[in-house]
Amino acid sequence: MEKVRRNERLSAMLKTLSDTPNHIFTLSTFCEMFGSAKSTTSEDIDILRDVVTSFDLGEIATVTGAAGGVMYRATVRKSQARQYIEGLCKQLSGTDRVLPGGFLYYSDILSDPLITRKMGAILATEYFDDEPDFVLTMETKGIPVALTTAHALGVPLVIARHSSKVYEGSAVNINYVSGSSGNIQTMSLARRAISKGQRCLIVDDFLKGGGTAKGMIDLMREFNVEVIGMAFVMSTKTPVRKRISGEKSLMTLEIASHGDDQEIAKVTPAPWLLT
Amino acid sequence: MEKVRRNERLSAMLKTLSDTPNHIFTLSTFCEMFGSAKSTTSEDIDILRDVVTSFDLGEIATVTGAAGGVMYRATVRKSQARQYIEGLCKQLSGTDRVLPGGFLYYSDILSDPLITRKMGAILATEYFDDEPDFVLTMETKGIPVALTTAHALGVPLVIARHSSKVYEGSAVNINYVSGSSGNIQTMSLARRAISKGQRCLIVDDFLKGGGTAKGMIDLMREFNVEVIGMAFVMSTKTPVRKRISGEKSLMTLEIASHGDDQEIAKVTPAPWLLT
Repeated sequence: MEKVRRNERLSAMLKTLSDTPNHIFTLSTFCEMFGSAKSTTSEDIDILRDVVTSFDLGEIATVTGAAGGVMYRATVRKSQARQYIEGLCKQLSGTDRVLPGGFLYYSDILSDPLITRKMGAILATEYFDDEPDFVLTMETKGIPVALTTAHALGVPLVIARHSSKVYEGSAVNINYVSGSSGNIQTMSLARRAISKGQRCLIVDDFLKGGGTAKGMIDLMREFNVEVIGMAFVMSTKTPVRKRISGEKSLMTLEIASHGDDQEIAKVTPAPWLLT
Repeated sequence: MEKVRRNERLSAMLKTLSDTPNHIFTLSTFCEMFGSAKSTTSEDIDILRDVVTSFDLGEIATVTGAAGGVMYRATVRKSQARQYIEGLCKQLSGTDRVLPGGFLYYSDILSDPLITRKMGAILATEYFDDEPDFVLTMETKGIPVALTTAHALGVPLVIARHSSKVYEGSAVNINYVSGSSGNIQTMSLARRAISKGQRCLIVDDFLKGGGTAKGMIDLMREFNVEVIGMAFVMSTKTPVRKRISGEKSLMTLEIASHGDDQEIAKVTPAPWLLT
């Protein structure tokens, strides 16, 4: 094998690390990949750490000990996150996206690969330290952002369904009261999807009354799984009192009247982003 | 600003390019980012192209002309793709994952961030040249792989629903006959989700009779959108004649009897991967 130069090693190393985020790679992995010595690889990592920091591309962390090594985290600084979310709020505010009944159209935002990737990185940044074992979402609209959050955290995504499907095998079903409609609905999750004692981060697209979120917490209780956090893309300003608390949303939505027969959406960054 | 060294520039450049795949960055973007001359940036790109190729990390392409620049594509070589899919087939084959009724449990695979990312890159590799404007999927299980495919292709994801929702606004509904159950079902898509004359790549998790896929084609016809391709994670061996043709699947599923009262799943890479 030809000798690999440092600039080649660094770029291939960062690509490899960032493709599998929050996952520890041993130094040996890279020594073998490039045919270089441990001391050289350590120096490479030091340089990479500075590059990533100075260009705001996330974070390179080294983990010491027997199971040690190096990993990449797609962390987003609070100021960057705020700026990004402010841009989204601007895009979503106004009268264009308000639908009859006071709903906001933002399905396009929720399934955009680049936007959900950024939102996932922002949410993951808040939950690295809580070390969730998986991300849980309830079908359908929250799936993309839940997937990108799970990717950034280096954990699997688990999707609860509205009813149990034959191709999911034996399942745990719970009933919950939908916050918006007041109707009783069913939430279902395959038994083999998760294990007792795991730690769960709930990620979903929309929080209004909190009925669905409360249902997800109840569902996790049935599996003896601890919910370590709840994150949402959008939270409504009212009702102020929701059935859950302690959640982090990215944006707050208020629909206000705007002249005769018209409504306007006011979307603002969530308070925790402004501190 | 301190002078940025080549090894720093290259890693930051590759990270930036690969975070937004199949998107043309002008040379000026990087000249400004690093405070370097155009000639230097061109040399950087040449080195990066070789690095990416020699470590099988995808492809760096330069585009000439007024709208020219450089872009990253997460292309996967056929031999690599085959090897990866063979690994998945091994994991899915056997008796463990067969559910009553002859269904295969693979929801965990379909929502794993790393696996869906790889599957998305493999599928995108087949459709770069067809230049789709968006990826269409039908809720729910195909959403993660459709998202990763869309990300690799640098286009939005559009999700069709089982019924029109109030928060999606005016919608186009079509009825289709589900291949597996023979029941008539409804498929719905918000009018504002796509525009007339666009090109669509359909990506979904499962193909059996082809009823749902046929429904998606009909839905696109209503929007005057051309379907340029159809890709699936899993296709069943029977029925051999499906309602659609020309699709690419990653794996083929056969459920066979395996002694008394037991069934076994035989999952194999799709034929096109073996050529």
